[in-house]
Amino acid sequence: MTAFIGELIGVAIIILFGGGVVANVVLNKSKGQNSGWIVITAGWAFGVAIAVYATGKLSGAHLNPAVTIALAYLGQFPWAKVPMYIVAQILGAFIGAVLVWLAYLPHWAETDDPGAKLGVFSTGPAIRNYPANLLTEIIGTTTLVFGVLALGVNKEPAASGLAPLLVGILVWALGLSLGGPTGYAINPARDLGPRIAHAILPIPGKGSSDWAYSWVPIVGPIIGGLIGAILYQMVF
Amino acid sequence: MTAFIGELIGVAIIILFGGGVVANVVLNKSKGQNSGWIVITAGWAFGVAIAVYATGKLSGAHLNPAVTIALAYLGQFPWAKVPMYIVAQILGAFIGAVLVWLAYLPHWAETDDPGAKLGVFSTGPAIRNYPANLLTEIIGTTTLVFGVLALGVNKEPAASGLAPLLVGILVWALGLSLGGPTGYAINPARDLGPRIAHAILPIPGKGSSDWAYSWVPIVGPIIGGLIGAILYQMVF
Amino acid sequence: MTAFIGELIGVAIIILFGGGVVANVVLNKSKGQNSGWIVITAGWAFGVAIAVYATGKLSGAHLNPAVTIALAYLGQFPWAKVPMYIVAQILGAFIGAVLVWLAYLPHWAETDDPGAKLGVFSTGPAIRNYPANLLTEIIGTTTLVFGVLALGVNKEPAASGLAPLLVGILVWALGLSLGGPTGYAINPARDLGPRIAHAILPIPGKGSSDWAYSWVPIVGPIIGGLIGAILYQMVF
Amino acid sequence: MTAFIGELIGVAIIILFGGGVVANVVLNKSKGQNSGWIVITAGWAFGVAIAVYATGKLSGAHLNPAVTIALAYLGQFPWAKVPMYIVAQILGAFIGAVLVWLAYLPHWAETDDPGAKLGVFSTGPAIRNYPANLLTEIIGTTTLVFGVLALGVNKEPAASGLAPLLVGILVWALGLSLGGPTGYAINPARDLGPRIAHAILPIPGKGSSDWAYSWVPIVGPIIGGLIGAILYQMVF
Repeated sequence: MTAFIGELIGVAIIILFGGGVVANVVLNKSKGQNSGWIVITAGWAFGVAIAVYATGKLSGAHLNPAVTIALAYLGQFPWAKVPMYIVAQILGAFIGAVLVWLAYLPHWAETDDPGAKLGVFSTGPAIRNYPANLLTEIIGTTTLVFGVLALGVNKEPAASGLAPLLVGILVWALGLSLGGPTGYAINPARDLGPRIAHAILPIPGKGSSDWAYSWVPIVGPIIGGLIGAILYQMVF
Repeated sequence: MTAFIGELIGVAIIILFGGGVVANVVLNKSKGQNSGWIVITAGWAFGVAIAVYATGKLSGAHLNPAVTIALAYLGQFPWAKVPMYIVAQILGAFIGAVLVWLAYLPHWAETDDPGAKLGVFSTGPAIRNYPANLLTEIIGTTTLVFGVLALGVNKEPAASGLAPLLVGILVWALGLSLGGPTGYAINPARDLGPRIAHAILPIPGKGSSDWAYSWVPIVGPIIGGLIGAILYQMVF
Repeated sequence: MTAFIGELIGVAIIILFGGGVVANVVLNKSKGQNSGWIVITAGWAFGVAIAVYATGKLSGAHLNPAVTIALAYLGQFPWAKVPMYIVAQILGAFIGAVLVWLAYLPHWAETDDPGAKLGVFSTGPAIRNYPANLLTEIIGTTTLVFGVLALGVNKEPAASGLAPLLVGILVWALGLSLGGPTGYAINPARDLGPRIAHAILPIPGKGSSDWAYSWVPIVGPIIGGLIGAILYQMVF
Repeated sequence: MTAFIGELIGVAIIILFGGGVVANVVLNKSKGQNSGWIVITAGWAFGVAIAVYATGKLSGAHLNPAVTIALAYLGQFPWAKVPMYIVAQILGAFIGAVLVWLAYLPHWAETDDPGAKLGVFSTGPAIRNYPANLLTEIIGTTTLVFGVLALGVNKEPAASGLAPLLVGILVWALGLSLGGPTGYAINPARDLGPRIAHAILPIPGKGSSDWAYSWVPIVGPIIGGLIGAILYQMVF
């Protein structure tokens, strides 16, 4: 139960900061409107770092089904707990998205573009090309999981020292460098939970939740996470 | 008395950097004019980090009535000292705002927009909607206080190690992600002290101090801080 | 063999992040398009920091022929291993560039400017003037190698603590401050490996690989690295 | 002699990065042209952090006559060594400025505005008003010296741990928040050494070195440094 709460709160924090920063940049009349990619990637990065510091002692701070599955594959986490972790992660992402919706409540009606509004919740492709989009998510999540493992985060108490900050910097770098084509889901829960929130919440003029694309940020990160784990095994 | 001086100087440092960075971005002819949200949020974040490092040993570096009240609620700080801390915090914020006014002395007359000038001192809503603005401040301060507590800042000597820097990063993230609708007061003293300074100082063409809004960045952060403390108690 | 893998993976990580961030900023329809110099320099900096953390234990994290040669000159690394290290570094840079090409696959055909596309792979001069360009690369790499040595990175286990992050900050500063005239190769492998990839890969509308300039980011960094090593010896 | 070399190299590093980043942002055809205040302030901040790490063991890393004089006033540094330190600091600043001139050699003739070229070397007022400009420099340097002392930098080995990075963040914050009116000299050597270089070097179309203003970034920081030291004494 503690682990469930930890994963739930951790992913809620990530989405509160990550969805919040996109809202700030894309919603009309927001004070951070059009403040650019450095702002968006910094918001996601700091959100991840804070979430890892805050919840490392509760759940080990996976905060990502691709990480949970990769750790299970490596034998560092029991398969039996995987479903519980993933449910907590998706539920946390949903809650985080609801909080973003509330924090920016008067701004939804002031924004015309439905695509911008969906972008606060879920990722989407810059150029729609499913095999290419999938490949981008695979490369990104391979790098994330290999990086997290190589940084030794899984070997030390995750909630202490510099390690959570380094995970944040890794996520910052992934956004800066590999976020261009798909908006870097690199985490199935980060995309699915807020997409469900987008579908359910009464957002004025919200348009489609783009379910046709929704499998890419689920399948890509899971494949990438496994490749990252295998690569880590081969090298270390 | 040492604690009073610590809180006073700490909040003065926060406002000197925080008000100063807004002045740099919004006042006419300033070298940092129009340099954007990343600059504003970084200035506030670094100001908070420096203030916590500088005053942690003097007063425990609350630097925020919402934090002081939350710690008192949790039994980690005596209620009897709460008024003294809050007076020091508001007085420090007032002094910081006077220093910003002095540092940018020739720029006030060069700037036409009275709203921009007020924005150097106090927060204001992007879209005026008191219940929604209050909710944004509550969500932001809940996250701040839960985050500060979860980062363990209140359990270690606040002036050492990485913790004050992490508090700065938390404030950076709050500004990036949740600052869009209200300019993220998340601290009653940060807003009230400089608003008093704005009302008193002889600023050319300054316009209204917008007292009608002033209760939102006081009430919202106090409520949010208490919710953050309760959430922390429930989880840990 | 472990060292070979370490250098190969480390430089591949640097180029994946460094080439990736340029792709994000310059390729058409990318989500980070035109996000500016702070994004480009942060991407390279974080890539270097992550690569040093990830591979320090495998190979000592030279990740740069100019560093390898400088350490050999100082007697801190055997000359006999220098060729193997340099081959691994160039091969890693090539692999990193291929990954960037794959991650941004649909964006190449959408981008017209062949110079922008080459810029994702290799450096080029803002004003073509070979002696001046060479001098800029020498000054940059002197500072890099002197800085890395003075930061004491070569005296402690490279994979631990704050040191790799400081190397990243050093590279960030070099990009911010000395990257203007030549795009700061400061690493022969970083430039040559991706230039070979550019020449080989089937990139739509790619134009020349500018081999006429390719000696500058090889010769300049090697000279600069040796000057940095000599300066370090003289001072410390 | 070691201390002389340390101060000389340290300030040369600061100016190489600090002057370099201004050159990158303001000189025509530079790759970082118009990249803004976040880039300029980050370049100065990282330059200071790297210089403190690199030279702390050699000289204690004062790197600023205002710091040297303040420490002498506090009895933490012998007055007899003050002139030697200041000469080393100004000479280092001169050398750093020459290196910036060399690194950007082809860009001077491509840039028309003589004010932009002077800005690479020395500070100047956004609005020329000597008493107000002096006051801004006093407030900035008071904060710098009080901050450096309060961060405890002068009590620990300056070259180790997090402290030099925190000094860099303090300088970053000063630039972000108080750099608007005068370009934040907050260091007499930082301004005077490069101004001498500007006067001597054969820069195409360079215009006046503005000696009429040159006393402000000397007198202001020295006064501010002493106030910061006195304030530190009173508080701690």
